Amino acid sequence: MRRTIYNEDHEAFRSSVREFLERTVLPNVEQYAEDKAIPREFWIEGGKQGFWGLNIPEEYGGAGAGDYRFNAVLAEELSKVNAALGSCGGIHFDITAPYLVELGTPAQKQRWLPGVASGEILLAIGMTEPSGGSDLAALKTTAVRDGDEWVINGSKTFITNGFSADLVLVAARTSPEKKSRGITLFAVETTKPGFSRGRKLDKVGQDESDTAELFFEDVRVTDAEVVGEVDSGFIHMMQKLPQERLGCAVSNVAHAKQILIETLQYAKDRKAFGQSIGQFQHNKFLLADLFTRIEVTETYIDQCVVAHDQGELTPVDAAKAKWWSSQVQNEVLDHCVQLHGGYGFMNEYRVARAWRDARVSKIWAGSNEIMKELIGRDLGL
Amino acid sequence: MRRTIYNEDHEAFRSSVREFLERTVLPNVEQYAEDKAIPREFWIEGGKQGFWGLNIPEEYGGAGAGDYRFNAVLAEELSKVNAALGSCGGIHFDITAPYLVELGTPAQKQRWLPGVASGEILLAIGMTEPSGGSDLAALKTTAVRDGDEWVINGSKTFITNGFSADLVLVAARTSPEKKSRGITLFAVETTKPGFSRGRKLDKVGQDESDTAELFFEDVRVTDAEVVGEVDSGFIHMMQKLPQERLGCAVSNVAHAKQILIETLQYAKDRKAFGQSIGQFQHNKFLLADLFTRIEVTETYIDQCVVAHDQGELTPVDAAKAKWWSSQVQNEVLDHCVQLHGGYGFMNEYRVARAWRDARVSKIWAGSNEIMKELIGRDLGL
Amino acid sequence: MRRTIYNEDHEAFRSSVREFLERTVLPNVEQYAEDKAIPREFWIEGGKQGFWGLNIPEEYGGAGAGDYRFNAVLAEELSKVNAALGSCGGIHFDITAPYLVELGTPAQKQRWLPGVASGEILLAIGMTEPSGGSDLAALKTTAVRDGDEWVINGSKTFITNGFSADLVLVAARTSPEKKSRGITLFAVETTKPGFSRGRKLDKVGQDESDTAELFFEDVRVTDAEVVGEVDSGFIHMMQKLPQERLGCAVSNVAHAKQILIETLQYAKDRKAFGQSIGQFQHNKFLLADLFTRIEVTETYIDQCVVAHDQGELTPVDAAKAKWWSSQVQNEVLDHCVQLHGGYGFMNEYRVARAWRDARVSKIWAGSNEIMKELIGRDLGL
Amino acid sequence: MRRTIYNEDHEAFRSSVREFLERTVLPNVEQYAEDKAIPREFWIEGGKQGFWGLNIPEEYGGAGAGDYRFNAVLAEELSKVNAALGSCGGIHFDITAPYLVELGTPAQKQRWLPGVASGEILLAIGMTEPSGGSDLAALKTTAVRDGDEWVINGSKTFITNGFSADLVLVAARTSPEKKSRGITLFAVETTKPGFSRGRKLDKVGQDESDTAELFFEDVRVTDAEVVGEVDSGFIHMMQKLPQERLGCAVSNVAHAKQILIETLQYAKDRKAFGQSIGQFQHNKFLLADLFTRIEVTETYIDQCVVAHDQGELTPVDAAKAKWWSSQVQNEVLDHCVQLHGGYGFMNEYRVARAWRDARVSKIWAGSNEIMKELIGRDLGL
Repeated sequence: MRRTIYNEDHEAFRSSVREFLERTVLPNVEQYAEDKAIPREFWIEGGKQGFWGLNIPEEYGGAGAGDYRFNAVLAEELSKVNAALGSCGGIHFDITAPYLVELGTPAQKQRWLPGVASGEILLAIGMTEPSGGSDLAALKTTAVRDGDEWVINGSKTFITNGFSADLVLVAARTSPEKKSRGITLFAVETTKPGFSRGRKLDKVGQDESDTAELFFEDVRVTDAEVVGEVDSGFIHMMQKLPQERLGCAVSNVAHAKQILIETLQYAKDRKAFGQSIGQFQHNKFLLADLFTRIEVTETYIDQCVVAHDQGELTPVDAAKAKWWSSQVQNEVLDHCVQLHGGYGFMNEYRVARAWRDARVSKIWAGSNEIMKELIGRDLGL
Repeated sequence: MRRTIYNEDHEAFRSSVREFLERTVLPNVEQYAEDKAIPREFWIEGGKQGFWGLNIPEEYGGAGAGDYRFNAVLAEELSKVNAALGSCGGIHFDITAPYLVELGTPAQKQRWLPGVASGEILLAIGMTEPSGGSDLAALKTTAVRDGDEWVINGSKTFITNGFSADLVLVAARTSPEKKSRGITLFAVETTKPGFSRGRKLDKVGQDESDTAELFFEDVRVTDAEVVGEVDSGFIHMMQKLPQERLGCAVSNVAHAKQILIETLQYAKDRKAFGQSIGQFQHNKFLLADLFTRIEVTETYIDQCVVAHDQGELTPVDAAKAKWWSSQVQNEVLDHCVQLHGGYGFMNEYRVARAWRDARVSKIWAGSNEIMKELIGRDLGL
Repeated sequence: MRRTIYNEDHEAFRSSVREFLERTVLPNVEQYAEDKAIPREFWIEGGKQGFWGLNIPEEYGGAGAGDYRFNAVLAEELSKVNAALGSCGGIHFDITAPYLVELGTPAQKQRWLPGVASGEILLAIGMTEPSGGSDLAALKTTAVRDGDEWVINGSKTFITNGFSADLVLVAARTSPEKKSRGITLFAVETTKPGFSRGRKLDKVGQDESDTAELFFEDVRVTDAEVVGEVDSGFIHMMQKLPQERLGCAVSNVAHAKQILIETLQYAKDRKAFGQSIGQFQHNKFLLADLFTRIEVTETYIDQCVVAHDQGELTPVDAAKAKWWSSQVQNEVLDHCVQLHGGYGFMNEYRVARAWRDARVSKIWAGSNEIMKELIGRDLGL
Repeated sequence: MRRTIYNEDHEAFRSSVREFLERTVLPNVEQYAEDKAIPREFWIEGGKQGFWGLNIPEEYGGAGAGDYRFNAVLAEELSKVNAALGSCGGIHFDITAPYLVELGTPAQKQRWLPGVASGEILLAIGMTEPSGGSDLAALKTTAVRDGDEWVINGSKTFITNGFSADLVLVAARTSPEKKSRGITLFAVETTKPGFSRGRKLDKVGQDESDTAELFFEDVRVTDAEVVGEVDSGFIHMMQKLPQERLGCAVSNVAHAKQILIETLQYAKDRKAFGQSIGQFQHNKFLLADLFTRIEVTETYIDQCVVAHDQGELTPVDAAKAKWWSSQVQNEVLDHCVQLHGGYGFMNEYRVARAWRDARVSKIWAGSNEIMKELIGRDLGL
């Protein structure tokens, strides 16, 4: 179905993103995967284009766009290149930056936002811990008050941008007895003594992203690094999670749709038993099914984007968007692999990588099981 | 997700439909099922409320609303009572009436539309034949020119409203050699000599609807009964099918959603092993899943309604809406039965009937396989 | 795959069952559905053939076959006629009779087994209660000691053969404080004062079976009607449930396989768009898929039959057999309906009835959710 | 369900295989993945154990076991280490060796079988070509008669063991006009002039196996290298494919079952929200479901093994075994990943690799679509 939520301005922005990606990224994207790293140039060049400052006020070097649809367009175009670009970009501009923009003090904004916008300060967010998975209330990393300082100890894992980030927003327990009501967010510069990183994690997919474990050993910060209210970190995260999950959903669909379109072309070009494989009725019906699933899902996510832009996206609707889109993404990509036959198992084919890349989307940002738990509660169960 | 396509006028209309249904239908709906018939009072009373004339110009007794969203609201509310009410109502006001409104001559409109609006002339449409199923091009019913008249011979089956209809729009072959380009539509009054009906078909579900086989034995009509152009019946039907399929989709979702909401309540009320069955995690996650499916689908169908209202719904998007919604409807209702345990197998429970009722939605109005064929062609396959 | 568990004797027995069914049942099966009852002649004639006494010792009028494979053959052939015949027959000879054979006193055997074998005493079993569903431990029917007698009060629902049974094995609570360890089984003759039946339940499918609610109002029985040990009813039922569930599984597969074979023939005979509908690749692959599912499942159930015959079928394997076979049965039949197009929604087609009939198999004999609970526990969860 | 097809001899053999694997392979298996190669020691040591000569007559250095169940045991134990070991081993001893054993001349057997048994001559089979996928009849590699020699030109791709094989059984077109009846099998030693290999293919999974593209440029062989009859290669392959597909099925199930067992343990050990994650009802039911699927499938495959051992496995049953087992394997492993949460996306976890490894099983050895085509034909469609 024809999409209706984007106007000329959004499409012009989409063109500029594409132009940037074709010029800066596409020629080098193989290198990203080999290096397991997105190079700093990517961030700097994107910063020059104004991508990372979309929601950063103009006084701090951003565009102050105030229209979430630009975020969605950027997420889509990054994800169409590959899922890692989408997730690394998303962590920086769409997931972590808003904490600073919306909760930061003027001093914090002045200190970090210009660098975030320019790509000189790359962001990551540290919630997940080795022992805890999706259970934020079980957080073990602690920040203990010592004079005017906070002393952080603990570790975080599965941190996207973790190996290259300059500033990590870290959730740490400040009031041990208060469970989820005793967590505070700290902006930790990665040059701090006591901060270290594990190796880049060897992941099933998203080779291009540098995911790492982070260690905090007596890392000292001050109140100037507290983001938001002390002991209110859980609430702050709950308030930001809908946008995070919506961003995931936008990326999931754009990623799968792009590969599906490429697979359709492959199915037209590839011949077997004397005809295009897409013309075999089984494949034809399958592709019809997959395009339907994608478009139905895209329409839902688009309406979530509109709702979010109007400040009306509920956490439960974001949860629906997240789990459903990741489910569809994975189903669609599995069939796309099958339509490629043996080539679908070769990493040089985009579909093979996309299939690997997508698997994590059912797990991260709150696993799909957690999403169903949230929705179930909302149903009064 | 909060629905956004309906405004105050639509919701006021929805209230009036509900009030009508609660007053006129709900007290008698068991009787409908026993009689395998919706009584004429339903049509007459609905006519007084102006329901059947939504799209009929005011000069012919209608409201000339010109806003498809009213049709959708009416379809939803009928389907929430039961699927048969939705389908019988839909055949009358949403599927067959538009042929007369949009293709009829002034004389035809004058002759039939006031009765259609008032409920005195109940409509049916006769496309499907015993041998042909979804293959319209294989139509065997013929209309042969004899002097100034056309002589119709053949039979139609699975005709909703077939047993009680006063006027049947019949597709018949007028140019045998021209395949799909040799079909003409005729409005046949059921008082015509040579017209007869078989018994009410004994269906798996939708007990309340009178579905019948229709027989045409030398039924004589004149050019005054030709609807649209001679030999253009196939094109006329192709043009009307998107609205038919969209109407099905609207009904499918509304029907399943209503039963799902009732099932959620049941799952809260019903206790087993010491708690509400809805609180068992398996059921909780399942209900979360089902509500997500329904809302995602509803959002897609809503956007199709908007598109159709603006004259932009493509046949292929209608095909997507039809097959997908019927698939979701059937999946959801199967789980709703399971959540009811043994009671789900008892016809006195609404969920049991709804499950039976829904099964046909994957078959009629072009089977889901035909829908995928259409979508596949649209993909260039 | 060629089945290997049946030898010549079993196949000869199969032939005799078929001959009986063709002669006695097939000419009248429509009448069964209309009457919502299997007539007594069926039971009497089957008794003459020795079907109901397969596992009854010869001294009590049975064959004392001692080979469960004959039970399985009988269950298969009954189910191939229709699911209700399979379930009513199963309740009589395969599910309830074994309680009397294995737990009955010599006097009880003398009193009832000859009639069970001859078909003059039709059996039913009363476990499920309106409030309890699958939760046997929550049983509310009580049997209170009063002098030498027990006074039974309560009700049972969803009782197959309930309307026509002559003897009902009833689970009642004899020690209220002991939960599942306080249940006793009673053989209640339906001529007893205080016993009554509700109307035949109006079910979604299995029209031919008379399912009813049973009421016990101060029904007086003596120790002579206690089957097995007092307060050991739960254990007795747990010991018999594997055979019940295996019998369900055998019937589920045989039922679905028979309809699938008929559907294959239909798909070969029915033409559309110029060829047999089975030759369309979508349908061809679908039928290939469905036959695979059926054969894989049949092989598993066959091996369960062998294991049970050797006394080695575990409750957890019976649970697997039950839930999986019912799942496959329902999936297969849903596709069979679809392959019949509009005719699949007409009750005069066997596939339509089979689809309705099968729905309950995921619910009864312990719902599939209960089966997964049992399997999960067996996994140590 | 307790498996019944293996006796003490098989289990003793299983123990010896396990002992070998624990001693020789497990300490080095990480190295295999890094090298993208199974080292020659593996083959030599396995040869000393007699594994590769299971079906090779004693006079040629084998065990001449003549009982396919030993093959199945070996395939299972290899696959339980990882899927690549299963597939590389299978290609050598279970898929390619039988061509030489059953079709080879005495001279050929003398020349190659002792080395096959000892592991000094590693085998591969070259059917698939870059352009052809599953369509064997479209083979483009040619062998043209030139005097007493055949000159082979063409290429093969996705060849398991391709990079390290010493002898490749190559299907080449000898009679261009005779389609599938014009193909001949040649045993090509990889030291032949004109033979070359591409790089090791970079695959989605099965990192340990060296899969390669093979090139034949005027490779000269004589009649002494023709295996079987000239122009009968297609028939020879058709006769061997059931064993190949059965071997795949055996490996698929063993692989998935092993990982599922490990996942169950993980679900018991891993805590979240205060309990073992396996105790959450959603996960408990899921694990119950997955174990059921695995056991049902295992039982079917076991019976196929018995049938094959008795010379009765039909090609269509092998096709069912192959597609169904690969489907179940992939479904099960996808859920196993999910149960591991974020760790399921980390390559250091066995489940992550297993998930990647399994994906090809739906594609190779005849894609699942080809299997359904074969089954459909067998149904008369």
